[in-house]
Amino acid sequence: MADARCYHNLPSPFPMKRGGELHGGHVAYETWGTLDPDAGNAILILTGLSPNAHAASSETDPSPGWWERMLGPDKPIDTNRWYVVCVNALGSDKGSTGPDSINPDTGERYRLDFPELTLEDVANAAHAVVEGLGIERLACLIGCSMGGMAALGYMLHHPGTVRAHISVDTAPQAQPFAIAIRSLQRESIRLDRNWNEGRYTEDTYPERGMNIARKLGVITYRSAMEWNGRFARIKLDPEERPSDPFGFEFQVESYLQAHARKFVHHFDPNCYLYLSRASDWFDVAEYGGGSVHEGLKRICIEHALVIGVTTDILFPLEQQEQIAKGLEDAGAKVEFVALDSPQGHDAFLVDIEHYGPAIGGFLDRL
Amino acid sequence: MADARCYHNLPSPFPMKRGGELHGGHVAYETWGTLDPDAGNAILILTGLSPNAHAASSETDPSPGWWERMLGPDKPIDTNRWYVVCVNALGSDKGSTGPDSINPDTGERYRLDFPELTLEDVANAAHAVVEGLGIERLACLIGCSMGGMAALGYMLHHPGTVRAHISVDTAPQAQPFAIAIRSLQRESIRLDRNWNEGRYTEDTYPERGMNIARKLGVITYRSAMEWNGRFARIKLDPEERPSDPFGFEFQVESYLQAHARKFVHHFDPNCYLYLSRASDWFDVAEYGGGSVHEGLKRICIEHALVIGVTTDILFPLEQQEQIAKGLEDAGAKVEFVALDSPQGHDAFLVDIEHYGPAIGGFLDRL
Repeated sequence: MADARCYHNLPSPFPMKRGGELHGGHVAYETWGTLDPDAGNAILILTGLSPNAHAASSETDPSPGWWERMLGPDKPIDTNRWYVVCVNALGSDKGSTGPDSINPDTGERYRLDFPELTLEDVANAAHAVVEGLGIERLACLIGCSMGGMAALGYMLHHPGTVRAHISVDTAPQAQPFAIAIRSLQRESIRLDRNWNEGRYTEDTYPERGMNIARKLGVITYRSAMEWNGRFARIKLDPEERPSDPFGFEFQVESYLQAHARKFVHHFDPNCYLYLSRASDWFDVAEYGGGSVHEGLKRICIEHALVIGVTTDILFPLEQQEQIAKGLEDAGAKVEFVALDSPQGHDAFLVDIEHYGPAIGGFLDRL
Repeated sequence: MADARCYHNLPSPFPMKRGGELHGGHVAYETWGTLDPDAGNAILILTGLSPNAHAASSETDPSPGWWERMLGPDKPIDTNRWYVVCVNALGSDKGSTGPDSINPDTGERYRLDFPELTLEDVANAAHAVVEGLGIERLACLIGCSMGGMAALGYMLHHPGTVRAHISVDTAPQAQPFAIAIRSLQRESIRLDRNWNEGRYTEDTYPERGMNIARKLGVITYRSAMEWNGRFARIKLDPEERPSDPFGFEFQVESYLQAHARKFVHHFDPNCYLYLSRASDWFDVAEYGGGSVHEGLKRICIEHALVIGVTTDILFPLEQQEQIAKGLEDAGAKVEFVALDSPQGHDAFLVDIEHYGPAIGGFLDRL
């Protein structure tokens, strides 16, 4: 199967917000649809922490993407009308330059020599892709989860380049509960002896730490309510149970294990640490003299759709309300949608029945 | 300072619910107040997973207990009127027989040779203490958190021995979210190489695993809402920050670290695993042909007070409602109190302003 990925070379040097710069950096992205001659129909999608740029299948790469039911011809983000770009975050390991990439100055992997990464850097790198494609102004900027924070950074750093914004299950800053969860995920990786301050190999890999980090992620990305209906207290069949002492007995435990297995060796631990910390650092209040609301009020766009879900414990609904109010007070026409999907933070990936019409309807009206 | 602990020798052999038996086992407990000649003023407290029997200070041990503001002369649980017993759970390491105790059959620590532990065993051991004190019928049985589940087991296994019951921040069975959290806590201990299938020493101690388990506990025992007010995004002073890569930066991280430090070497990891698993196993539905409600309906008491808190993510309020309804349908006069303390599951330890009057008022009316 062909790889639909394109690569955009970042300006070199590419300055980073907290100091340092990248040389010869690049960003992976994919596109769907056709750009209008006036480049007026472009949508940019900024992703959560772990997805790659393959949001949906395409002719070049027909494998399903992470937002397959949302994006494509006649789907809510309709590629018959829109030209859609999805960017792999700078600092990730899915094609963009990050801690797992080779540092051209040394010929070795960056590892912890990668400069400190912020979501503003992620936004700036995505903006470079958009500019490179000849798009002066996005018809719409969509940001999900971590990508929603990066989107706020994008609009703050590149005023006038976004007409409409869709903010999905995100926040204007990390609250202490989210910081505590992410800190513990990072700590479980750091405490794994194999992490070795970032100098692991495939043979000495911080598998245990990544396993715990991922499970903690999955627990907080979903919701207790969904699991009550889905797993209740159903036990594993005896032959499915591992024999080790205190091994798994309940279905919910093997569900977490299956999720962790899919992730542990498919996301670089150092990249995870960098992006996780960047999520904790991000704070719109920095742009508003210490006030989130004042920071948001500096974002000038025409339309916004802000979606959140009542069961999200990581990015609680009140933080989406905060974004909606801020953008509205900044002059945008804002639609606020509070869904009661049972799936928690991950609802945007799963509950397309509700997210689809909200996002599709908003785009139709643009 | 004198130790106020008493010890009750369990019948030997002491049969365990899931098989096996203990020889020469005992349970540590403390008492406050004076038992009436007819033994009609006795209250038993069953604790959460980690506390010892020292619920409050006494003449013998004036150090503050874990429920100091709740228990004592003229306090909500007024020891001028009541004779109060608090038992250290069987399987714990605070004086009662558990995995960290010496197995008299081998002269070595039990470690994983300790029989499988259930909360019904914890209840039966507590009941043996009460019988040993000459108390046929408790005026009130109070169970907090894990102890609340053990209390339900106590009433199911010893019908007619409890007149009134106070159920605090607990559940009739573990839901999958709570199972997932506890499973991850156990896994973080098990994945620590030093755990070594239970054969650690003080020099090779599963400190990293215990550290993660405890932090995950503290995160889920408290609430996001409380932390927003308490920590917000306050950063540590530069001199307080560890220099290690990805080290702590936010106050909430050092708060968790301080909690973990206090716990890691003060609770035996194997005991933790046994009690944690027992909490997942407990299920009132076992006593009701698969129905929690039918199980609860088998509990015959006169009065009950059921307290829960809206911010508890581990034992959500609807589970306390379930207990209240079940006990009511079983014929008890039930008071249900839903508090909106911001502190989450641990509110019963902290928000004495609200828990105190609820518990004290209920006891006054008995």
